[in-house]
Amino acid sequence: MQDVSGFLSNVKPPMTPVLVVRRAALESNLALMQAACDAKGVRLRAHGKMHKCSALGRLQLAGGAVGLCCQTVGEAEAYVAGGIGDVLVTAPVPPWGWARLAALAGHARVGAVMDSARQAHAASAAAAAAGVTFEAFVDVDPGMGRAGVAPADAPALVQTIRGLPGLNWAGIQGYCGHHQHLLPAERAAAHSAWTRELRQLLADLRSAGLAPGQVTGGGTGTAAMDLAAGVYTEIQAGSYALMDVEYGDLGDLPFQPALFLAATVVSARHASHVTCDAGHKALHPNGPPQRVVWPVGSQYRPMGDEHGAIIPPGGAAEGDLLWLQPGHVDPTVALHDGFFVADEDGALDRWPIDARRASL
Amino acid sequence: MQDVSGFLSNVKPPMTPVLVVRRAALESNLALMQAACDAKGVRLRAHGKMHKCSALGRLQLAGGAVGLCCQTVGEAEAYVAGGIGDVLVTAPVPPWGWARLAALAGHARVGAVMDSARQAHAASAAAAAAGVTFEAFVDVDPGMGRAGVAPADAPALVQTIRGLPGLNWAGIQGYCGHHQHLLPAERAAAHSAWTRELRQLLADLRSAGLAPGQVTGGGTGTAAMDLAAGVYTEIQAGSYALMDVEYGDLGDLPFQPALFLAATVVSARHASHVTCDAGHKALHPNGPPQRVVWPVGSQYRPMGDEHGAIIPPGGAAEGDLLWLQPGHVDPTVALHDGFFVADEDGALDRWPIDARRASL
Repeated sequence: MQDVSGFLSNVKPPMTPVLVVRRAALESNLALMQAACDAKGVRLRAHGKMHKCSALGRLQLAGGAVGLCCQTVGEAEAYVAGGIGDVLVTAPVPPWGWARLAALAGHARVGAVMDSARQAHAASAAAAAAGVTFEAFVDVDPGMGRAGVAPADAPALVQTIRGLPGLNWAGIQGYCGHHQHLLPAERAAAHSAWTRELRQLLADLRSAGLAPGQVTGGGTGTAAMDLAAGVYTEIQAGSYALMDVEYGDLGDLPFQPALFLAATVVSARHASHVTCDAGHKALHPNGPPQRVVWPVGSQYRPMGDEHGAIIPPGGAAEGDLLWLQPGHVDPTVALHDGFFVADEDGALDRWPIDARRASL
Repeated sequence: MQDVSGFLSNVKPPMTPVLVVRRAALESNLALMQAACDAKGVRLRAHGKMHKCSALGRLQLAGGAVGLCCQTVGEAEAYVAGGIGDVLVTAPVPPWGWARLAALAGHARVGAVMDSARQAHAASAAAAAAGVTFEAFVDVDPGMGRAGVAPADAPALVQTIRGLPGLNWAGIQGYCGHHQHLLPAERAAAHSAWTRELRQLLADLRSAGLAPGQVTGGGTGTAAMDLAAGVYTEIQAGSYALMDVEYGDLGDLPFQPALFLAATVVSARHASHVTCDAGHKALHPNGPPQRVVWPVGSQYRPMGDEHGAIIPPGGAAEGDLLWLQPGHVDPTVALHDGFFVADEDGALDRWPIDARRASL
């Protein structure tokens, strides 16, 4: 990782553990991805599941993104409330979600993916009842087994959607989550195999008179390949904005680390390690280990829900501020309620993580 | 686990994924622990780090608990705002925390543990500046290496605290987090060894004229042993109220499962599994695997941040409600903003998780 110690030494958050965004790195990442999409005439629909923050989303739209992707109904609601006028729910919507999305669709352009006729009928009924229209995408499974129809089943679902009121068939989604974190050579091979399959599906749809308006998919790991292949009309990348250890360690992505966690040494009674106030409730353990950025050369090990060990201390003493880079950005963000956004001189802004889980 | 399918079949939460508390099981657990403490004349100071919910905390106090433990300054603030009049912060407080705790101490009885003279001086300065008094506990390390002084160093820190304004030396803490999840025989052996050490420390303190007012510690796993040993004056158990797979599988605890996660099947296109809407952001992976309660006989495997697989489907179809028991309750609660509290007939109440992380 590039040297961020000069920047971090200027940042003094008023409490810990907190997430700190390096504004300059964020802005550079946003501009890089937008320029790459613009150069190919491809739409950027940034994924809001990663940051859950409408202030960050508004920045993405101001830079040229056409809208945000959401993974949940709650995210879509928060983003529309936060001023995002075009949202696409990229995961199958549970039955309880359609009426809530229909209520949103009176205020914003609302899209949703579907992988069953049952979902299409539920969406249509809710849209018709509310007098609104959903942008409907057929979700195609690129082999993850999580959601989406097999490519061969896509045309039939397209026909179902086209026959239902309240649904505007907008295109197809082919999102390859399982390719994003592959090392470069394996990623290129997997991407190439899927692109062949996707091209065949698009040809089949065209022959059937069903050319899709949009082909949405792609992510931070495959974005360069997605843009080069020319099959997607819309890129769904999310993590590029803030990055994490998992994406940074791939070695071939041009984005800078823009997200750090500040913690405090709360106990320092051992030569082997110091104890900080960040554990499983501040740093989600999914993904590779959290990386210690300062003190340089130390490692982090969780010590329960609210504590972690910094091994060796590397000069850190009781009361000192420590800095880590999250292993996997998305679920760690989901544990927090806001970002402190820092200028290079340490001036702090506060952005609520307003799309985090709300069920009450 | 006892059969909960009759109860769960009555519960229809309006959205998923959500945490559902079985009120009858919660009330039974609260009553059991309170009665066990009462029978020995020991105070129950329930740990609020687990539930982060002042409504649940108020129920514990109404049943006889003297107050709540907190693991963070933010939890203490939320609990005092939520009507809890006596809080003890059971982890070392970072430097930025003392002024905030001093502001609280004008409205509630506020205790804090300390494991260094530096902390004692910082606490004293903040208390003196605000004109308040902290209940100060010396944190003794039972061998976890996380926080706390070695037993031999406790008397000196007691003397430091006794000499500082704004601090009322209230006693010692000896919390054995590393014993709580041991199997019964190993737990008894570890508990017995630590109890000998603790008794020796108490004898040393008494000989030095420093008999502590309170000896606080213990947890859900060791509570029966703690009460039988008669060394603690105050039990800090938390998980007993809601339970989880990790504690339930120990086999010797009398508490009932009271917390479940409801999820929805959102895709069902494979014979091998169905996909539900609960992943790493709804069920924290720390601890043993999440347990599928319904459909009976299935297993859960996370499929990314927002999805999980139920393997085999066990009859579950698209749109169906699924039920899981969290592997480890504390960090999973930290991912949510509220509990749906269900009566046996399915009537739902809503309790905010109001002590979850707030940094803005």
